[in-house]
Amino acid sequence: METAVPAPAPEFITSLQNSRIKLLVKLRDRRPRDAARIFLVEGYRQIRRALDKSIPLLELYFCRECFLGKNEDALLEEARAAGAELIELSKPAFEKVAYRERPDGLLAVAPQWRRRLSNLALSESPFVLVVEGIEKPGNLGTILRSADAAGCDAVIVCDPVTDIFNPNVVRASTGVLFSVPLVVAESREVAAWLRAKGIRTAATTPHSEQLYSQADLRGPIALIMGSEQYGLSDFWLQESDLTLRIPMAGQADSLNVAMATLVTLFEAVRQRGL
Amino acid sequence: METAVPAPAPEFITSLQNSRIKLLVKLRDRRPRDAARIFLVEGYRQIRRALDKSIPLLELYFCRECFLGKNEDALLEEARAAGAELIELSKPAFEKVAYRERPDGLLAVAPQWRRRLSNLALSESPFVLVVEGIEKPGNLGTILRSADAAGCDAVIVCDPVTDIFNPNVVRASTGVLFSVPLVVAESREVAAWLRAKGIRTAATTPHSEQLYSQADLRGPIALIMGSEQYGLSDFWLQESDLTLRIPMAGQADSLNVAMATLVTLFEAVRQRGL
Repeated sequence: METAVPAPAPEFITSLQNSRIKLLVKLRDRRPRDAARIFLVEGYRQIRRALDKSIPLLELYFCRECFLGKNEDALLEEARAAGAELIELSKPAFEKVAYRERPDGLLAVAPQWRRRLSNLALSESPFVLVVEGIEKPGNLGTILRSADAAGCDAVIVCDPVTDIFNPNVVRASTGVLFSVPLVVAESREVAAWLRAKGIRTAATTPHSEQLYSQADLRGPIALIMGSEQYGLSDFWLQESDLTLRIPMAGQADSLNVAMATLVTLFEAVRQRGL
Repeated sequence: METAVPAPAPEFITSLQNSRIKLLVKLRDRRPRDAARIFLVEGYRQIRRALDKSIPLLELYFCRECFLGKNEDALLEEARAAGAELIELSKPAFEKVAYRERPDGLLAVAPQWRRRLSNLALSESPFVLVVEGIEKPGNLGTILRSADAAGCDAVIVCDPVTDIFNPNVVRASTGVLFSVPLVVAESREVAAWLRAKGIRTAATTPHSEQLYSQADLRGPIALIMGSEQYGLSDFWLQESDLTLRIPMAGQADSLNVAMATLVTLFEAVRQRGL
């Protein structure tokens, strides 16, 4: 992109004691992240998707030595044009702020947002995923990918142990975090909202007698998935209109919650004739 | 378990320079692993499953300070009774040999094995998974879990970039590596073997026109999945009796190879009426 006035050269940081460097490291933890209402977005793919979804990146830290591809400069220019401040880091400085094992030289800071149930735009026959008490950021990120692939209208995260702005959620979601309509809410509020919208609820649990593929998952439906360690709460088991079981041939815990979610989502996709 | 003669106290290693410690660190790499025909099995769940499948553990390193549960001592005793040498490590020594971020104080050394196509015991209507050129150990481990849950007769790994004894395969498989019949072989050999056994081949590729849920996956069948980066080779695309496509609502790459494998496997399970 051409500009009439040349853009100023980005700030260049080499000191590991620089206050910006220290803040970036702190943002791996939830408390400082929530206090400042910002979060980290690391990696080309993730930042690409943030820009595609017009997320207003505040800062974009980069290290040319770490670049893996050829499109990084275009990405930097696009981020700058969209209002992000560019800051160049030495390799040691970048390696200090990166949380990936093999950093690709790109790390952005973005503002947190908060969407409410009332902000969700639902299709005529809503297809919603509700997850309860998810503990591992990697699982939540993978679940977001699955919901994106399945074309869910929304993902509702109830009473999460991990927060949606955890760096590993952003990473595991490959940036789908920026495109899937996502709401964090309390289970009771969510159940009342689903009832008010006329959306049936189907809870996946190993204790159900009904095979997930034999239940009718067409029409307005919310699939409900429990946490890694405890499964679904009694609240959701009692609240749900039906329960589903995935058949399991091998070890009892061969499918983790992210895998069970994916299998259930795609059975719904099959039945709904996406 | 009671023994007439008390077992000798395990060796106790504190020095990070100890030759055993150095060897354990080396075993993270494929070359020394293959040269010695051994591999690492870290973690309670993984070692538990190795014992359940009568894998003859050679050595079991442990660190009481790192234990997370209450059953570790019983596990140690069971491993010793089965012939494993027990070696106790100081916490610094254990942290040096552990490859997990949060080690649980258990790390075993087991002998590698090699199974051939001719060793596979197939059911009357074989259900086989073939994966080609998988690069990431985490994906291969997850694929093994999926195949276990789906009740596959066998997993055949063609031309892998990662080896099946990589520590991250063992970890991501949660020890299913020890129970799923698994063969590593060349694609041409595998294709010939499948034909000779009368097993149809169904390749999943985004370029297929047939929806995976509309293809007939009953009867003797092998599902064929490609690599992360390149997808299926021309060889398998031409060799396969049918091709399948998973519908994708969101980002093109929302499902990685492990997720696509899981979805395809469970559609086959549904049709086959497990």
